Amino acid sequence: MKALGVCLRLLSQAEAVAVDEALFQHFSVDSLMELAGLSVAEAIATHYEEASKVLCVCGPGNNGGDGLVAARHLKEFGFEPEVVYPKRSAKPLFQNLESQMREMRIPVRDNLPPDLGEFDVVVDAIFGFSFTPPVRPPFDSILRDLVESKVPVVSVDIPSGWHVEDGPPTSGLSLAPAVLVSLTAPKKCAAKFEGPHYLGGRFVPPTIFEAFGFSQPPFPKTSQVVRLA
Amino acid sequence: MKALGVCLRLLSQAEAVAVDEALFQHFSVDSLMELAGLSVAEAIATHYEEASKVLCVCGPGNNGGDGLVAARHLKEFGFEPEVVYPKRSAKPLFQNLESQMREMRIPVRDNLPPDLGEFDVVVDAIFGFSFTPPVRPPFDSILRDLVESKVPVVSVDIPSGWHVEDGPPTSGLSLAPAVLVSLTAPKKCAAKFEGPHYLGGRFVPPTIFEAFGFSQPPFPKTSQVVRLA
Repeated sequence: MKALGVCLRLLSQAEAVAVDEALFQHFSVDSLMELAGLSVAEAIATHYEEASKVLCVCGPGNNGGDGLVAARHLKEFGFEPEVVYPKRSAKPLFQNLESQMREMRIPVRDNLPPDLGEFDVVVDAIFGFSFTPPVRPPFDSILRDLVESKVPVVSVDIPSGWHVEDGPPTSGLSLAPAVLVSLTAPKKCAAKFEGPHYLGGRFVPPTIFEAFGFSQPPFPKTSQVVRLA
Repeated sequence: MKALGVCLRLLSQAEAVAVDEALFQHFSVDSLMELAGLSVAEAIATHYEEASKVLCVCGPGNNGGDGLVAARHLKEFGFEPEVVYPKRSAKPLFQNLESQMREMRIPVRDNLPPDLGEFDVVVDAIFGFSFTPPVRPPFDSILRDLVESKVPVVSVDIPSGWHVEDGPPTSGLSLAPAVLVSLTAPKKCAAKFEGPHYLGGRFVPPTIFEAFGFSQPPFPKTSQVVRLA
């Protein structure tokens, strides 16, 4: 993948898992999720500067957590986020994130709102790089509704329902996000994505780049996100 | 304190402690320290765009942690930070921060380097809003060396050695920082500071502004820091 003259190596699913494990030897999940979610919010604020209402659809794991953090920063940036979060986690980190939604007065729902058309952008923070098919309820019907809506979707790290390496499913409904925000490094499925593509994850130490043989292009100034394509 | 047409209420030491406790009912220390340190790094990258070598002097508590996080982001921003961290903490958060310094290849020392003149900026992340005099060793001699050096000092939240409410000490050496980066809200001692003044802490929920009766001016775009004066 060519970005800013730099050839970015795309990670396999196993590599993505291993990079994550390597990061967590030195960082707490809280710290990295904060920066990941901030980078997603910054990508949206940059790409959809004129947007107002943003719906963050959050899955049960860390990808969902990135979506919750992004919702909080979007609110700080002056957007009007709402959250769909059907499968909530009892872990303290996620209990904190839910509490932050209440304190920030960000509405949190269990289901998609009936009219997706009232939103300018939808954030797909449902599944990340640890996803393996099939998509289980209630996310199957949520994904179907997102596919059928006309609202532009920003996918966090992996377009939900896509195979992490092979890309869109070969049968059935397939999400076609308008924008992709890869985190740390694009995964192999990103080769099948042709729209605007951002990279977040300005926190990977050089030791991890060297150990896993990948890199990031230079980020602009103090930005947490860099546009790749 | 007048900033951008907004009158900012300055917090007492007891209020600063209470606001912090209120924040930690909803956020982990890790998340907020990440954003606080990022805001300090962003203020330095904005104010000292041409700087290269930055020395982050880190105290034993959370103010020191903000300094360690700032060092990491400064390295990401292309600066060459070094760290002085004489009193290290065994808490997992701080063990992680030390580990991050190693992975980021940021040198960490126990003492000030002999020639402060080789640095463009010094970050004073020694004491924060929970400081009560006197300054104890080894920070007394460190502060003396900072006062006597000609290197511009950026103080994080409180100029170290200052009384949180009353400002500079009435006797003995007194640190005169070039820049102040207040976090969450300026404390009362900020009334005695006349230089360039930034505010970080773009994470305070409206519920906490209302409960404690303070506010922040609008931050620009996706910035984690706003200039007050």
